[in-house]
Amino acid sequence: MGYTLGQLAKQLNAKVKGDKSCLISRAATLTQADSTAICYVEQAKHVKQFSTTKAAAIVLTEELAAICPKNALIVKKPRLAFAKLLQILYPFKKPKHTLHPTAVIGEGCQIDPEAVIGANVVIGDGVKIGAGTYINANVTIYPHCEIGERTLIHAGAVIGADGFGFETDSDGSWVKVLQIGRVKVGDDVEIGANTTIDRGALDDTVIGNGVKLDNQIMIGHNTIIGDHTVIAGCTAIAGSVNIGQHCLIGGDCSIGDHVMIKDRVMLTGGAMVTKSIKTPGIYSSGTGLMSRRDWQKSVVRFRQLDTIYQRLRELEEKNRE
Amino acid sequence: MGYTLGQLAKQLNAKVKGDKSCLISRAATLTQADSTAICYVEQAKHVKQFSTTKAAAIVLTEELAAICPKNALIVKKPRLAFAKLLQILYPFKKPKHTLHPTAVIGEGCQIDPEAVIGANVVIGDGVKIGAGTYINANVTIYPHCEIGERTLIHAGAVIGADGFGFETDSDGSWVKVLQIGRVKVGDDVEIGANTTIDRGALDDTVIGNGVKLDNQIMIGHNTIIGDHTVIAGCTAIAGSVNIGQHCLIGGDCSIGDHVMIKDRVMLTGGAMVTKSIKTPGIYSSGTGLMSRRDWQKSVVRFRQLDTIYQRLRELEEKNRE
Amino acid sequence: MGYTLGQLAKQLNAKVKGDKSCLISRAATLTQADSTAICYVEQAKHVKQFSTTKAAAIVLTEELAAICPKNALIVKKPRLAFAKLLQILYPFKKPKHTLHPTAVIGEGCQIDPEAVIGANVVIGDGVKIGAGTYINANVTIYPHCEIGERTLIHAGAVIGADGFGFETDSDGSWVKVLQIGRVKVGDDVEIGANTTIDRGALDDTVIGNGVKLDNQIMIGHNTIIGDHTVIAGCTAIAGSVNIGQHCLIGGDCSIGDHVMIKDRVMLTGGAMVTKSIKTPGIYSSGTGLMSRRDWQKSVVRFRQLDTIYQRLRELEEKNRE
Repeated sequence: MGYTLGQLAKQLNAKVKGDKSCLISRAATLTQADSTAICYVEQAKHVKQFSTTKAAAIVLTEELAAICPKNALIVKKPRLAFAKLLQILYPFKKPKHTLHPTAVIGEGCQIDPEAVIGANVVIGDGVKIGAGTYINANVTIYPHCEIGERTLIHAGAVIGADGFGFETDSDGSWVKVLQIGRVKVGDDVEIGANTTIDRGALDDTVIGNGVKLDNQIMIGHNTIIGDHTVIAGCTAIAGSVNIGQHCLIGGDCSIGDHVMIKDRVMLTGGAMVTKSIKTPGIYSSGTGLMSRRDWQKSVVRFRQLDTIYQRLRELEEKNRE
Repeated sequence: MGYTLGQLAKQLNAKVKGDKSCLISRAATLTQADSTAICYVEQAKHVKQFSTTKAAAIVLTEELAAICPKNALIVKKPRLAFAKLLQILYPFKKPKHTLHPTAVIGEGCQIDPEAVIGANVVIGDGVKIGAGTYINANVTIYPHCEIGERTLIHAGAVIGADGFGFETDSDGSWVKVLQIGRVKVGDDVEIGANTTIDRGALDDTVIGNGVKLDNQIMIGHNTIIGDHTVIAGCTAIAGSVNIGQHCLIGGDCSIGDHVMIKDRVMLTGGAMVTKSIKTPGIYSSGTGLMSRRDWQKSVVRFRQLDTIYQRLRELEEKNRE
Repeated sequence: MGYTLGQLAKQLNAKVKGDKSCLISRAATLTQADSTAICYVEQAKHVKQFSTTKAAAIVLTEELAAICPKNALIVKKPRLAFAKLLQILYPFKKPKHTLHPTAVIGEGCQIDPEAVIGANVVIGDGVKIGAGTYINANVTIYPHCEIGERTLIHAGAVIGADGFGFETDSDGSWVKVLQIGRVKVGDDVEIGANTTIDRGALDDTVIGNGVKLDNQIMIGHNTIIGDHTVIAGCTAIAGSVNIGQHCLIGGDCSIGDHVMIKDRVMLTGGAMVTKSIKTPGIYSSGTGLMSRRDWQKSVVRFRQLDTIYQRLRELEEKNRE
């Protein structure tokens, strides 16, 4: 079982250095590799492991191949080639049940026969699910939501729960604003474990094609995420947010409601967005990490910052005289 | 199917402007409305859409109605009226199963026959659930918890898991402090998808009447949330916290343990509370968002804030001489 | 039913003050205790409740016992003794089903007959679960993950979903990097409700022995958590992080990828870690909480911090002349 290095090279459009007939049956890190494994190296700092790894072959650039004593697949982008190689070595295996007998499916659903619905998944009435889409265990999809093709939803995700909308009544209690919109998820999307995407209030919440969402992300009602945007874990996005295409949103960010974020904006982890971002670029928030003792001092001064500034101005005035 | 504008006006105690016999069968935004739809407008900035919307009628104030060429329902609070109107247009439909056959119910539970228990819900022994309460799919309720009437719990929520309590043993390992309290959830509460509320250590964790909790909120053991308080998504609340009534807590806040928060306090998104808040008002935390390059400079200076302050004082001394 | 104070003292290696034959059948707080309940007091501030509590007995130190008019169990560490006492008073009851009939178990699993698998749990192929481990309702464990002995996993947790790995293709879309590693969870671990632990990309994600994880924690692929480390709720840990042993990580922290954290480091709630921590100690982040009005002023000045610093330096130069 497995492939020769030559066969893999052909499929990846790569050049072989060394033994074309060398047999590859798995992928591994340099440390864990045995004589049947292929690895990849993209950074020069890993070169020192060339002498100790037991790997059968390594995917790397022309430049690094020159100093590598191992069999090699030479490519321009080793990690990209390795990602494609993994898909060859570990092909998708259709599960025994494409519609697991414990899944609960509502009335009037259109579920493509080429979709896979996992154990204990609950799907509401009128849901549409496209071909090649894979819904893992314990996912809940509320009524009338639509999921595209080749989309992967991880366990525990909840698609289409009510958006968070209330209005104060005269007695101070809250009246629920019924949420009658849907969630529409595009093609080639990935949605992480326990991520929640709320249905729209009137219009829909929309996740574009090729969007990748990590675990425990929260997406509020009527938010729109542009194609190919990537969002890391635990990021909280409020309602009616509009995020552009090809954005890179770090983990644990928080994005306030009605914010608009342009294409190709990057947010570093923990960024807190309360106003629209109209210029592509990299944005950040936070104070960084400090020892608690020093931090306590800085926090006191942060409270006084405006006073500090005013006192500085007064001094400047004095010194100008 | 549907209602005449006149019928809706009567139910909402509103005034009609225009055609009382006009037929309404759905609600929509100004943009998506067709000739069977009713919309609402609360802010003057939407007035420009009056000429383009295809809506049959609009809910608005006396003031805006004066310049609206459409059929209108005139009320004092358009969004509140619209919320009530949605409940008329989209009445609750009892599902086929009020107790879904895949739900797992423990022994000695008291579940009101007027409650709805969704698919794959798991309910532990001795749980009480009131009339009109709706538990969505894949929710877990641990033993002996109590849920009031007309409460809505969204998919994936976990009520009554163990609070987080451990004590170091002599060998440095952790001894579990068994969590024998319960969770008591009041009437008219909403609990969002994948939100978790831990059971009390000895006494109970208590969620008051009319409380609204968004998705992915964490509430620690023995915390008490006062009536009609609203908490937005991803907010993390530690143990033994006491939050008053009618508070508005933004998304992604974090509230440390044993904190006491007065009635009618408002926290903006991302606020970090480590001490009790004894005065009603609006509170905030964080640095705001900056370009990464500028942020990096500010962060360096944040670390030096106390030194900066001391140097400023020295200069002031000098200038006083 | 219950124990005499003398019996409990023997099991806890404690000294009795007062009536050895006094009967104890439950544990409670000082406020909620009745004449069958035992309480504990560790802090002097609770002494004033000695006169009002109806408790049968109190666990406390020699020092506090001297001023306590009640029956008492005298120990060095009251909370630790009380934790052990709870385990005596409320012994583990094996549920009717150790493998709940609604649980879905994959092929080739090795589940110890002394493990408990709850309702609607979904376990993938080739999973190993050790003796005494308890998996609560609605948990999902992906294929080939390994869980040790006496480990407790709360409802809704997801173990072994795909790590978040993608590589840009030439057309700007994302190619999935298949995640073929596993999750290995040690012995005596606790994993909170809706916590997610991703499988490794090539190597494994590893949770050490005695680790305690609260609810809604996110742990990225290939992260390693050292033995006996405790992490509070909603903390987000990215991929390839290495956290040492006996660390105390507060709630709602965020830890960036490839960060290394030494043994016995403590992070206060909300700490944001982007670089490795090489020295044991206590670390913090954030601005603290302010009234919104004052905070807005400080935030403006935070943006100007570097300029403020430069202006201070100029003034200092002037004053040096």
